[in-house]
Amino acid sequence: MTLFTPEEALAYHRNGKRGKLEVFPVKPCATQKDLSMAYSPGVAEACRAIAADPDTVFDYTGRGNLVAVVSNGSAVLGLGNIGPLAGKPVMEGKGVLFKIFADIDVYDINLNCTSPQAIIETVKAMEPTFGGINLEDIKAPECFEIEKTLKQELDIPVFHDDQHGTAIISGAGLLNTLELTGKRIENLRVVISGAGAAGIACAQFYVTLGVDPANILMFDSRGLIHPQRTSGMNPYKEQFANGTPDMDLTAAMQGADLFLGLSQKDLLSQDMVAAMADKPVIFAMANPDPEIPYPSAKAVRPDCIMGTGRSDFPNQVNNVSGFPSIFRGALDVRATSINEEMKVAAARALAELAKEPVPEAMLEAYGVDKLEFGPDYIIPKPLDPRVLLWEAPAVARAAMDSGVARQPVDLEPYTQNLQRRLDQSRARITDIVESYAAK
Amino acid sequence: MTLFTPEEALAYHRNGKRGKLEVFPVKPCATQKDLSMAYSPGVAEACRAIAADPDTVFDYTGRGNLVAVVSNGSAVLGLGNIGPLAGKPVMEGKGVLFKIFADIDVYDINLNCTSPQAIIETVKAMEPTFGGINLEDIKAPECFEIEKTLKQELDIPVFHDDQHGTAIISGAGLLNTLELTGKRIENLRVVISGAGAAGIACAQFYVTLGVDPANILMFDSRGLIHPQRTSGMNPYKEQFANGTPDMDLTAAMQGADLFLGLSQKDLLSQDMVAAMADKPVIFAMANPDPEIPYPSAKAVRPDCIMGTGRSDFPNQVNNVSGFPSIFRGALDVRATSINEEMKVAAARALAELAKEPVPEAMLEAYGVDKLEFGPDYIIPKPLDPRVLLWEAPAVARAAMDSGVARQPVDLEPYTQNLQRRLDQSRARITDIVESYAAK
Repeated sequence: MTLFTPEEALAYHRNGKRGKLEVFPVKPCATQKDLSMAYSPGVAEACRAIAADPDTVFDYTGRGNLVAVVSNGSAVLGLGNIGPLAGKPVMEGKGVLFKIFADIDVYDINLNCTSPQAIIETVKAMEPTFGGINLEDIKAPECFEIEKTLKQELDIPVFHDDQHGTAIISGAGLLNTLELTGKRIENLRVVISGAGAAGIACAQFYVTLGVDPANILMFDSRGLIHPQRTSGMNPYKEQFANGTPDMDLTAAMQGADLFLGLSQKDLLSQDMVAAMADKPVIFAMANPDPEIPYPSAKAVRPDCIMGTGRSDFPNQVNNVSGFPSIFRGALDVRATSINEEMKVAAARALAELAKEPVPEAMLEAYGVDKLEFGPDYIIPKPLDPRVLLWEAPAVARAAMDSGVARQPVDLEPYTQNLQRRLDQSRARITDIVESYAAK
Repeated sequence: MTLFTPEEALAYHRNGKRGKLEVFPVKPCATQKDLSMAYSPGVAEACRAIAADPDTVFDYTGRGNLVAVVSNGSAVLGLGNIGPLAGKPVMEGKGVLFKIFADIDVYDINLNCTSPQAIIETVKAMEPTFGGINLEDIKAPECFEIEKTLKQELDIPVFHDDQHGTAIISGAGLLNTLELTGKRIENLRVVISGAGAAGIACAQFYVTLGVDPANILMFDSRGLIHPQRTSGMNPYKEQFANGTPDMDLTAAMQGADLFLGLSQKDLLSQDMVAAMADKPVIFAMANPDPEIPYPSAKAVRPDCIMGTGRSDFPNQVNNVSGFPSIFRGALDVRATSINEEMKVAAARALAELAKEPVPEAMLEAYGVDKLEFGPDYIIPKPLDPRVLLWEAPAVARAAMDSGVARQPVDLEPYTQNLQRRLDQSRARITDIVESYAAK
């Protein structure tokens, strides 16, 4: 299953230009005239225009297409609290994904900060630089306060991908399972294993989509989060405190309609899965190994609909289906935030796209004969190029409809231009990558 | 003299991709395998390597070639305190110059901060991201405290270009005037007009080069900075308090050997210049119009050696001859700072280069018949491509000799590779710029 060796991955980062990103000028800068416009004295015209009308910063600088990927490295992938230096390769990688999937420029900002207040103050200070802030790999519960405060205090989109990315993509899958199982969302009995950033955010988002919070049983490493529990609690967990002190995962899984795992491998037994309700949904997203292996779950419950974080089984839940398009849509209407309406629009757009016929080229890329809406295909493939074209306009529209768009766009030409824009961007990237390979 | 119209300068910033910088991936990212190394799960190999040995962050990320251009927009060009939004075009422009002249990647960081402490804390927080910090357009006297504190507390080069850039380039010119006038530096009588960031730093650097601080008379907008003065003073001005309360600029200029102007246009009269010592040196660097027009000074003192900030007269003092090469040299030996030895080495390298024969291509580029060491050519032209090759190795050597280089280099192959590196970088830039122009 592994596509590369550890040494290959290290060489990928080390060889040629070190790291993964490079900053290039995009305007002519070969002559004295060019440089006198790029810098002194000509640049003063742009400065004066912005001083007179701050909104023109989006015309004369790259701010409107520039996102900060901000992390303190306190919860990096499955590696834990490795700090900002060791986290930098991940943040640069996030920049690669933003660019490849949505032509968004990223400065990775790796912060030597531990307290929420220090991170908040630093990001607030940098606001004039950026069109949006993507918080990344910051541990819970600090991440909740950081995001909440920054959303209140900044005038640009702030989005903690570890929370909302997983919530939105799995939420899209959830919407489609309702259609396939004929169940009503408000009746779903939900078990969640994992009360970190993603677990809490998924629970909140599922409630936004219609799940009854009283029907959620949430577990962390100490067991069920229930109303009598006092140790290892925080206000975010308390929202989902249900059940009784004696209830364990086995008991909770009895008759459950949906299991959401953001915890650790092999936590679910085949017996637990067998005890779930008819046509159960299992999102087992521990990485790299899910809470129960796909074949083990399917063996005892052929009627289940299962999604994991893995690319080698159906229904991969991969954040890359979310954040690039969500920021693309938000930036393109100069949204002041990424609100709930925009997140729901993103999930619904992904859910709808999964019902569309899949182009031949996609089948070839994934080496499969067919991909057709059903239990084995409830969300679009992460590399599906149509994701941007469906999701970004839906997010832009929701921003306009919900009143947070500072610069509305006409959606039809906007959508038509997106593909061309991405193609041109990718052609430039190919040229640069090849110029290094040719050395 | 102006090479462009205001509308052209605005269009330069606005048309095509907005702003002047773009962030591109440089590693292959077309396939699932590529992406699984750029991001999860392969990136974890790089994270683990850095967690085990923090120094390898320079191998596996772009940190070692990445400089933050940090500003709060409080003293932008001649525009004053226009703030971080309106200052952003300048900081992006600085990024263009870093890349064009030294293949250094820049993230412009525009801070919504006014207090020195807030800027210091923000930059300290971001340290893991960057290989160096270029402070820019931060007003005096705050800039002194900010730079001093950050130099003490960070383990990477911190350099306030408004201070040291002008000091180093004009210092190079000063060294060469000594050779042309036969004067000894310790005997020079110096008048400085302007006690902002650059004025103070030039005075300090000239002292490092050998000027006797007792021979400096420094003026600000209130007049002479003298030992009895109490208003509008700060500890940085106090270092250069000399003379008597009754002394004005006219009196000070009597018999002066060197006038350094970093103040405002037309401050010097022809009479003042006429009263200077034999073979006087006039660095009149107010922008865009110097303290006295070049022709006016030459008319009364044909024996003077004059430099300005302008490209249309001899001896343009332009910071672009400094910061790109200085950071290039510092980054390439992983210097922990840019110390006095490195600054002096940069000035001496520039001074020596001005004595070399000028290549034909340079003469053509500047449209002149000859450029030859003498009163009209005491410093290399800003666009001279040899500047990097002379200055960066000199800075690298000084870093090694002074014990701040964490990774020494063999200077001969290092120097030989610099030109090739810059050529390859510029070829990539040309391709990108042309791909936008072709749209």
